[in-house]
Amino acid sequence: MPVNLSAPDPASLHPVAGLRIGVAEAGVRKANRKDLTVFLLDEGSSVAGVFTKNRFCAAPVQICREHLAAGAAIRAMVVNTGNANAGTGADGLARANATCAALAKALSLKPEQILPFSTGVIMEPLPVERIEAGLPAAIADARPDNWAHAAQGIMTTDTIPKAASVQVQIGGKQVTVTGISKGAGMIRPNMATMLSFVATDAHIAPALLSGLVRELADQSFNRITIDGDTSTNDSFVLIATNKADHAEITDLDSADGKALKAALLDVAQTLSQAIVRDGEGATKFITIRVDGGKSGEECRQVAYAIAHSPLVKTAFFASDPNLGRILAAVGYAGIEDLDQTRIDLRLDDVLVARQGGRNPDYREEDGQRVMKQSEITVHVSLGRGDASDTVWTCDLSHDYVTINADYRS
Amino acid sequence: MPVNLSAPDPASLHPVAGLRIGVAEAGVRKANRKDLTVFLLDEGSSVAGVFTKNRFCAAPVQICREHLAAGAAIRAMVVNTGNANAGTGADGLARANATCAALAKALSLKPEQILPFSTGVIMEPLPVERIEAGLPAAIADARPDNWAHAAQGIMTTDTIPKAASVQVQIGGKQVTVTGISKGAGMIRPNMATMLSFVATDAHIAPALLSGLVRELADQSFNRITIDGDTSTNDSFVLIATNKADHAEITDLDSADGKALKAALLDVAQTLSQAIVRDGEGATKFITIRVDGGKSGEECRQVAYAIAHSPLVKTAFFASDPNLGRILAAVGYAGIEDLDQTRIDLRLDDVLVARQGGRNPDYREEDGQRVMKQSEITVHVSLGRGDASDTVWTCDLSHDYVTINADYRS
Repeated sequence: MPVNLSAPDPASLHPVAGLRIGVAEAGVRKANRKDLTVFLLDEGSSVAGVFTKNRFCAAPVQICREHLAAGAAIRAMVVNTGNANAGTGADGLARANATCAALAKALSLKPEQILPFSTGVIMEPLPVERIEAGLPAAIADARPDNWAHAAQGIMTTDTIPKAASVQVQIGGKQVTVTGISKGAGMIRPNMATMLSFVATDAHIAPALLSGLVRELADQSFNRITIDGDTSTNDSFVLIATNKADHAEITDLDSADGKALKAALLDVAQTLSQAIVRDGEGATKFITIRVDGGKSGEECRQVAYAIAHSPLVKTAFFASDPNLGRILAAVGYAGIEDLDQTRIDLRLDDVLVARQGGRNPDYREEDGQRVMKQSEITVHVSLGRGDASDTVWTCDLSHDYVTINADYRS
Repeated sequence: MPVNLSAPDPASLHPVAGLRIGVAEAGVRKANRKDLTVFLLDEGSSVAGVFTKNRFCAAPVQICREHLAAGAAIRAMVVNTGNANAGTGADGLARANATCAALAKALSLKPEQILPFSTGVIMEPLPVERIEAGLPAAIADARPDNWAHAAQGIMTTDTIPKAASVQVQIGGKQVTVTGISKGAGMIRPNMATMLSFVATDAHIAPALLSGLVRELADQSFNRITIDGDTSTNDSFVLIATNKADHAEITDLDSADGKALKAALLDVAQTLSQAIVRDGEGATKFITIRVDGGKSGEECRQVAYAIAHSPLVKTAFFASDPNLGRILAAVGYAGIEDLDQTRIDLRLDDVLVARQGGRNPDYREEDGQRVMKQSEITVHVSLGRGDASDTVWTCDLSHDYVTINADYRS
């Protein structure tokens, strides 16, 4: 059961001019499920992406990097679920290249104009012949108002499709930002997330796109964790079709640039938080805010130590205010000169620990009240500087174990 | 159910001349359980310890460090379970000091000759009056052949007491090494473990002891992990009563020094592995060996990434050879210039992945066979150097969640 997250209303997902999406059932791993998605981009679109830092990055991630670097206009993307095509060596690269070649042929493009994406089980050969066989149906299905199907088409252990869409005025014109994401486990993105595709029809100088996608990732997908496992296939792609009729944005700090960035960040944060809300076995959505640090980096370090602690996560699952576990995680986060006597801990509005010890006014029932909520903010003050940062995570439940002990069977 | 670990036969735990141990029921947290243990050391003993690097270290850990640094001969130690006296601020220090003062008074010693240890729930006030009330019974119980009771007396979520004992010849004389440990969760020791006490009657120059205890910790307690949570109370203490009648060991690289070190390491490794075998919810004992690294440090980094991955741990629980999860963990372990095409993965004798891809000869049933065992070796070859290291861990099961969701209730 996702935490305060429901399937998006298809009508709320605005089409992005210049982009069509098609979905098909290719039987990659299981029959009768949408497992193949294509994105078809009009001429004049620009694309940028950030990808996993996992050194065991998947074959499609390696090819995405190559094709983006090659400089040919990206005109299509293909996404399969059921198989990650990771840990597959040279054979995996050949199969991903074959997928690109097949789609390029069908669309009269060059293979380097295609970006491939895969997600699913690691270290199994990609059934490229099934993907090739499914491509005609996916292409035939392509239409602008197909975001809701695409959100379904990229799901693996997700229990619910994830999508977000906003419209803003830029230069007096209405501009759309719409995106989808997938992911529920193996989530501790590092410069990117599992898979997320965000598109806008805004008109923006292509040179700005790669910096923008990194900035967005840094404030959204790079601030979430479910189990601390950085995937081999993390990819976050930003598409600008440049169809909107306003003056080209050439400076992200201009009024138009800021308006677009805010809309994109809104969609990216909603999508990244949706991944946590649908985290494998999640029953709680936890915001971890750390302030009073010397740097944002050390605040993140503390926030991730808390977010990854199995003991903290199981306490949240149990609604048990066993909050010393949070202090222990703060203590082992790796700040060598941390002074425990300066640390305060709050659970929402409840001051639990003050100056490193239990707040004399803290009552167990106050902690208990907050722990029972489905959305909880953990607030740690380090008392050593002015920096702060925030990370989003979920609890660790029996269902996490069940899902991951049964995933392949 | 611990993995291939049974309660020690009390008769197998040889007394250490010069050391008496007493155990009592003080009702620290719950009635009718052994929760208070004292160690009484004869004059002429020397003591060294290593303690948690957690910056939220508990009050007793802070006092142990002070008392060891003060230089007065340590003559007694007191251990309570049921309460960690961590995250308790200045009040916690006062309570730990009161415990030392009470034991010192009863034994006509100075407080700085006492080392205090606590383990249990964090951020609750230590019920020092109950501990003081229990001390006379613990002292009255003190005798040399009481190791088995002490192993019970320091347990918290442990399901089984942990002890080990060996005897070796040094300088023609029989020398004893006996030790106990406790710990089952919040285990990723950093320079030490939860609680472990190892004693020998060997005659060893006191100046050698603090180096020796670090070396032993590094090869035993610093190579295990259950959940990656470094405790606030980790302590590993080595006692030499110096009662044995051989020539004093003044060089650890001498024949006598090596014989003693080997016996101590044998006991320390057995005790540290016993903690993993009794890991909360553990059903499998996993040895993770990484070789072919540029340094031992990077081999440990990779081994710990695998050992801490919830996805790897749940796959072991399920006996599911979903081994791509191990490759993913290798990939995100943090080695920037790792070349995936040089990596081999073996499960016991089964070559699963070769040069970063699935071994063409690998058959699922071979992986399945190994995964069903209760003891499994994961062997990763990085193919970039000659260094190697080993870490021991366990799987992640439903019972881990149950135990930690229910621990306080």
